[in-house]
Order: sequence, then structure tokens, then C-alpha cells
Amino acid sequence: MTEFRSVAAASGEAYGDAFAVHGPEDVAKACAAAAAAFDTYRATDRETRAAFLERIADEIQALGEPLFEAYMTESGLPRGRAEGECGRTCGQLRMFAGVVRKGQWLQMRIDPAMPDRAPLPRPDLRLRMIPVGPVAVFGASNFPLAFSTAGGDTASALAAGCPVVVKGHPAHPITGSMIAQAISKAVADSGLPEGVFQHLVGPSNELGAALVQNPNIMAVGFTGSRAGGLALTKLAQAREVPIPVYAEMSAVNPVLLLPEALKARGEALGNAFVGSLCMSAGQFCTNPGLVLAIEGEGLDAFLAAAGGAVSEAKPQTMLTTGIAAAYAKGVEKLSAAPGIEQVAKGEEGTRTTGGAVLFKATAEQFLADKALGEEVFGASSVVVVCKDEAELKTVLEGLEGQLTATLHMDEADEALASRVLPVLERKVGRILANGWPTGVEVCHAMVHGGPFPSTTDPRSTSVGSLAIDRFLRPVSYQNLAQGLLPPELRDDAKGDGAPRLIDGTLTLN
Amino acid sequence: MTEFRSVAAASGEAYGDAFAVHGPEDVAKACAAAAAAFDTYRATDRETRAAFLERIADEIQALGEPLFEAYMTESGLPRGRAEGECGRTCGQLRMFAGVVRKGQWLQMRIDPAMPDRAPLPRPDLRLRMIPVGPVAVFGASNFPLAFSTAGGDTASALAAGCPVVVKGHPAHPITGSMIAQAISKAVADSGLPEGVFQHLVGPSNELGAALVQNPNIMAVGFTGSRAGGLALTKLAQAREVPIPVYAEMSAVNPVLLLPEALKARGEALGNAFVGSLCMSAGQFCTNPGLVLAIEGEGLDAFLAAAGGAVSEAKPQTMLTTGIAAAYAKGVEKLSAAPGIEQVAKGEEGTRTTGGAVLFKATAEQFLADKALGEEVFGASSVVVVCKDEAELKTVLEGLEGQLTATLHMDEADEALASRVLPVLERKVGRILANGWPTGVEVCHAMVHGGPFPSTTDPRSTSVGSLAIDRFLRPVSYQNLAQGLLPPELRDDAKGDGAPRLIDGTLTLN
Repeated sequence: MTEFRSVAAASGEAYGDAFAVHGPEDVAKACAAAAAAFDTYRATDRETRAAFLERIADEIQALGEPLFEAYMTESGLPRGRAEGECGRTCGQLRMFAGVVRKGQWLQMRIDPAMPDRAPLPRPDLRLRMIPVGPVAVFGASNFPLAFSTAGGDTASALAAGCPVVVKGHPAHPITGSMIAQAISKAVADSGLPEGVFQHLVGPSNELGAALVQNPNIMAVGFTGSRAGGLALTKLAQAREVPIPVYAEMSAVNPVLLLPEALKARGEALGNAFVGSLCMSAGQFCTNPGLVLAIEGEGLDAFLAAAGGAVSEAKPQTMLTTGIAAAYAKGVEKLSAAPGIEQVAKGEEGTRTTGGAVLFKATAEQFLADKALGEEVFGASSVVVVCKDEAELKTVLEGLEGQLTATLHMDEADEALASRVLPVLERKVGRILANGWPTGVEVCHAMVHGGPFPSTTDPRSTSVGSLAIDRFLRPVSYQNLAQGLLPPELRDDAKGDGAPRLIDGTLTLN
Repeated sequence: MTEFRSVAAASGEAYGDAFAVHGPEDVAKACAAAAAAFDTYRATDRETRAAFLERIADEIQALGEPLFEAYMTESGLPRGRAEGECGRTCGQLRMFAGVVRKGQWLQMRIDPAMPDRAPLPRPDLRLRMIPVGPVAVFGASNFPLAFSTAGGDTASALAAGCPVVVKGHPAHPITGSMIAQAISKAVADSGLPEGVFQHLVGPSNELGAALVQNPNIMAVGFTGSRAGGLALTKLAQAREVPIPVYAEMSAVNPVLLLPEALKARGEALGNAFVGSLCMSAGQFCTNPGLVLAIEGEGLDAFLAAAGGAVSEAKPQTMLTTGIAAAYAKGVEKLSAAPGIEQVAKGEEGTRTTGGAVLFKATAEQFLADKALGEEVFGASSVVVVCKDEAELKTVLEGLEGQLTATLHMDEADEALASRVLPVLERKVGRILANGWPTGVEVCHAMVHGGPFPSTTDPRSTSVGSLAIDRFLRPVSYQNLAQGLLPPELRDDAKGDGAPRLIDGTLTLN
């Protein structure tokens, strides 16, 4: 194949002009350019790099209406999402600009020499983080802006000082290319080498495989399916020089309805739950695909309300016909699972849409059939009915790693909550109370990550400012002359606003 | 095999009483106990955990002379090493106690709620690091104390809040068991569960494999051979839940002799180099196994001096007969490499000792034969003679990842040094000037790590206080009631001395 075309989500029909498909030679060329740009880009001072990130945000915002048109047509997502996600994407770039300026990410440490120490003098040792090298980014289909070409992986890698090669998601090539052009304009206008950002398009897995296998690539950011993430990880580990893959893959995001909260407001919780479940056709990594509760009247009220809301839910356009088909298949598989009960089903989906569905199972059934705990990407969820706290804890201990866990609780539930919290901490990256896991705040204290298989690396997050750490590694400098030290580690750099750990004591600037 | 005995390094003969070999059931039992102890141990407050680490140090110091006897007999290393390493091991535990108390490792972040933000309110988000879970530690043969049972991996994992299961190194089971008893005494005296620290002994690889494959183990620390580190990594990646392996494996630690320094003091450098090369029979991860220089009179003087010193070097006891045999084989293989020239050779080693040897090759030969750049664990080194700066840079760009790179330089070499520094930064974890890479300071700014294959994870260090980060992962708490938050993230914990990033601004306590 030498060219391919975008597809409108709502119609499933081709949309826009054809794209030339990038091949192995393009990958090699892009990665070589990224490697050639690395030393120049990573040597930029903090202000230059921060201003560059802000310029990208400005360029993206300047795209305006044509970007929203492409976004809505390619993804089937509504205008509110397009505008909100554009704001989020630009806000994320600006947040990283602020992070770069403040310099905490450099994690500077200085242990001054002790020439008179006995029995041996201590040398002068200074440490800073440096970027790992060129990064390959695989965008997600479900966030054509915030988790794609200029999404969190790209923003954090560029902030760290890594050139980026994006494998554009084939579900939104027009949106992706517009964004890529905006970034490349910012690169040029900032006087940086072209290799700092590059964008490859094509529908094949081979393109992505070649990118991960290229020896110039030193880390990978990915958001998508478990199969995709694991396949890339396998390739990365089999390289002559293995590299880390930060893949954010799948989760069912358990929601725990604690007894007192359920008793007080089972119906309200049921309605709010379906609001979260059906948002954007359920196509969120943090979609609440699993509800856990102890049996009783409160849960009955919840099920009645949630069932009613699901029954009335209209099918929504899904991101691609492939995703709609996979969703329908996943629902069919769940429906056929022995012992599972369908609580309610909305209007049936089509080739391009997905309808909501709610299932119910006992804890015993859930524990007996691993398939009930697997993610079905879309507006499908399973309510697991537990007999008592012990059974609830057994279900929790048996869960795979998750992005989030949610507690709906009242004050009178606090004792129970404190007993399940240690289990949740071992299982997830974010624990939230009395809210819904959909809606991931871009901030400093966010963790959008979690134990395997929700991600391939629970030591990190793909949303929030901590994401920059994924693309850094420490280097120590021993007894180097001032003129040879990196500028920020020299004696005269103190007071530049960046914190330093000096002889073990943190100083603010 | 049900039991095995230690071997005295100098004689190669059995030493001390027989040990019962631990089998698969012991591994399962130990890992289950570690998992059971995890929630209790990680909930200890900073003072309790710090005092526990200090108590371990006290118990180890109390072992006194019998420990040194076992150390010297099992390793063949001299008393100075035994005493120095014991001090280093205890100092390392006390350093981590200080780190634990200060609380920076928690990496706390608080983004306060913004209930009035439009279009959506911001929830309250708080982040801290939690320990990853039980850690398996594989000690190194060449540091029976500082990189073994109570070494840096154990100290940093315990500091992070992870229970530890050590696979004791079969080259020093008596030393290891004495240390293990000291730690277990500290565990008991601190009122902690036994599962916080456990020690398994046995000579087989199967024991280590079972440990890495046990589902309760969540991370691995290893120092040793490349083959060993890669084998464990493979097992860890093939698990149902893959886990990180921090393996510090092998390096040749290039030493660059820059022209002006070489001109000024080639002879002195040659003598000092052999001092570093032959220390502890060359059995250091940071041993200078590769010397790079541009041809000329200075280099001739260096070679003459170094060659003279090597010729006069006496064979030294190696850690095990296996290591002595591998060293002899490595030297033989290097000697047979086409184009390599033997500069000098000390007195021949025996079944239990290794002699020093110095080789020379042109850059052209070095680039043509990868084997010349491979580590030979022991007092062997290769001097690579480059025609000019361009050739020096070509050799550097072709190097594998390394723990260290050393520059011997004068002020007049600074321009050249600044041109090679960006290459070195991409290749190594620590860059030092006018010293020798052997001698790794335990401090805050140390990086004992580096790009693959010097380690399996260049994002970390196995020496120094930053090593604690390897065993931590972030968890975010959204809108949790004060009483449910971890104590250090509650509002009333401010002022406890630990730094917090509040709304993106670092505050000291």
C-alpha cells in the first residue's frame, strides 16, 4: 500500500485527501534526524525550551475551526470534546513549559568535595537528569488531541529534552497532520533542528514496529490496546539495546459502592454512574467497567436506577468501525458468559455506533470466570454483587492492576474504606472518593498509570507533570572543572530558581 | 543437592560447616511471608523505619572480628577491604535512615481543590510514592558486604518500605548468613514481622529463578555478570505480571588520556593507572578495562610506565576458582585476537589467583573486533591507540553503555574535553576527571548505573541515596477525606520536615 485515506467515524466512509504511507526508509530517516538533533535540542536552556513548548500551544490554538471539523469528523466526538480537548492539550504544553522553567525535573544534587576527610578525601560530585534520547510516541484513538500527536507523551518528552517521532494514529490522520504541521512550524520558528519533531503516517503495524526497533529510539510512549502495548514491549525488549516502553493499556476501573452511601443515595448513584459510563460512548481508559458492592436494598435501588438509565441510552458514534465491531463482540462474549445476568441494554448499536449495556454477576461467578474482569472498550459495565466485606476483599485481591479505583462512601463508611485502602493502593494508580474516574485532571499530583496490565510500568504516569520523569536518567559528574560542568551544575548557577539537594539538604534555588 | 559448603578463596578448599540448601518450597514460603509483611512494614512511620535501618547497622558492626575472618577467608580480599566495606555498608544503612527521615523520597505533591473553577471544578489531588512490594536481591561476589546481603539494594529497598528476600551469594555463604542473622535480629528487636527480611542460600541458578518468578516479588536488584543479569531479566519479563530488574552487569569503563595531560605526566598516569587496575585483583565493576588515547610521546611514556608496573605485579587471590578460571580464559581469548599486542604481563595466575595483563590495539583494530571491548573481569585492560580526535570520537560513539568514563586532562585539554562530553553523557552514568573510576562514593549525587548493557535500567543507580527511587511508584488520592489520606498527605502533616510540591511550587516542609 502506498497511500491511505481517513474515514469519517459517523458514516464509516472515506474522508479527505489520500495520504502517502510512510515506509521503513522514512522511519530510518526520521530516527536518524532525531538522533542528529538530540545533542542540540537537549542543550537548549530552560527558557528556550519552555518558550518552544508555549509556541507549540499557540500554533495549535491558531488552527481553530478547521481542526475542530477534522477532529469531529474523524472521531465522531462532539464539538464540546473537540474544544475541551484542544484547551487541555494546549494547557498541558503550557504546564510543561512552567515545569521546565522551574527546573525541579533536573533533580540536581551536589555533594561538595571534602579534601580533608579521613581515611580518604571525598571528591566533588554533582548529579543532574539528562534526557534519554529520541522518543517514539504512539497516539491513542480516543483522544485525537490530548493523547495523540501533541499529547501528553509528546509534551513530556519534548519537555525532558528528547526529540520525538510520532507514529500518527490512522483513525485521525487529518487531525494528526494538522497538529504535526503546527509543531513543525514551532520547531522552525524557534530555530531548532527539524529532527526535534517528526510525524509518520500509515495504517500498518509494521510502521510502528520499525520505529520501536530503530536503534536511535531510546524510549516509547503508547496509549491503546493491551495487545498493541504488549507487542511493542516485546519488540523493545528484544532489541540489541532494550528500551523502556511506557504503554498505558487497559483497565476496568473498579467502582466500590460502600454500604452507607448506597443506602443513602443508591438511586442517585445509579444515574450518575450511567452518566460516566456513557460519556463519549464509554471510550475512556478510565471508564467504570466494574462496580463492586455488597448486596442489599441500596444496591437494588442503584441497579434499578442504572438499569433504567442504560435502557434509555441511545447508541453513540464510536471512534472507528473496528472499535464498534470489537465492542459488539466484547458485549456478545460477556452476554454468553455462564452465570452473568444482563441488567439492562440500551438501543442496539450499528456498524458505526455502540449501545450501552449493564451486566450483573455474583462475586462467586466473577471469581470463577476471569473474562468477566476484562475490559470491553465502550459503554459496558459489570456489577459484582458481594455477600459481605470478606467477599468484597477477595474480589479486590484478585483484581489485575488498574488505573483507578473509586470509593462511593459516607462518613459512616470510613472504617470499611480504611480497611480496603491498602488493597487498592497495591492495585491502582489513583484512588478517588465520591466522584467518577472519567475526567483526568492535568496537574502535578495526577497519576494516570498503575500496576500491570493497566500499564507496562507502574513507576510512572502518562498524565500530569510527573510524566517528564519517564524520559530522564541521572548522570553524575565527579571533580569536573567548572567550565566543563553543565551550566546548571556550576557554582555560579545557584539562585537560578531550581532546587538542589546540597549534601543531602534540599535548597530551593 | 541438599547441602553445600563454603570454599576458602585462597585454597579453593571447603571451609566451615555445611549449609542446608533452600529449595522451591522455601522460596514460596519466604515470598508469601514477605507479601504478608508488606502492608505492615510500609505503614511504618519514617522514624520507625529509619531507626530500624540504624539498628541493622549497629547489629552488623557488633559482629566484629568473626565477620572479618569469614569475609577474608571466603573472598580472599584483605583485612583493609573487610573493615572498609563493613564501614561502608553500615554508613550506607545510616545514610538511608537519614533519607527516610527527611521524606523527600515520598515526592509529595498536593494540588488543592478549586471548587469554583469554570467550566469544571478541580478536585483535591494528592500524590505520594509507595513501595512497589517485596523485592528480591541478588548479592555480588566482589563486595560480600556492600553489594550483598545488607548491601545497597537491600538498604534502599528496606528504606523504600519493601520487604526483602535475599538470594545469598554462594561465594560467601558464611559472611552472608552472619549478616542475615544481624538483620533478622534488628527486625525482631524493632517489633517488625519476620517477613520483612529473609535470606535464602544455595548454589543453584534454579533457586534464583524461582525467586524472580514468584508472583509476590515485585522488583529485583542484582549485581553480577551480564549472563546472569540478562537471564533474570528474561524470566522477569516472561512473568504473568512482568517486573523490573535492576541489574548492574558489566562495563569496561573507558579512561581517556587527553593529549596535554599525557604530555605533562604520562609516566605518573601509567603508574597510577596500574594501581587502579590491580586493586582487589581488578574485581571491580568500575575497573578501568579500556584506555583511549591519541598516539604520541606522552602515550609512549604512559605505556612504558604502565607496562613496567604490570610486569612487576604479583598474582592476587581471586574471589572464586570459577572467577579465576574465567579470567584466565578471557585473557587467553584477548591474547589470541588478531592484531592485539601484549604490552606487559605480570606473573602468571594459578587456579585461585589472577595475574595482571595489559594489551594494546589500534583504534582500527578495536573497531573491527567487538571482542576487544568486552569486559574481562579481573586486572586486564586494553589501551586503544587513536590517530587523532576524529578517530577517538569514532571509538567513543561505537562503545556500549558504561558505568563510568574518566578524563585525564589539563586545562589546555578543556576544549577537547568539552567536545567529547556530550558523547560520554550519552554512554555512561558517571563522568570523572583526573581520578580513577574504582572507588564509588556512597552519597547523594552518585550514579552507579548507566546505559545498557552496563545495567538493564539506566534510569536509576544502585549506589547512593537516589537508589531508593527504584523501589517506589506514585499513587494519587482524589478527594479523599482527611482521615483516609496517608498521614503525611493530611493537612495537619505540613511542617513535618518533608518537602511538598504544592500547586506546582516546591515548599520545604
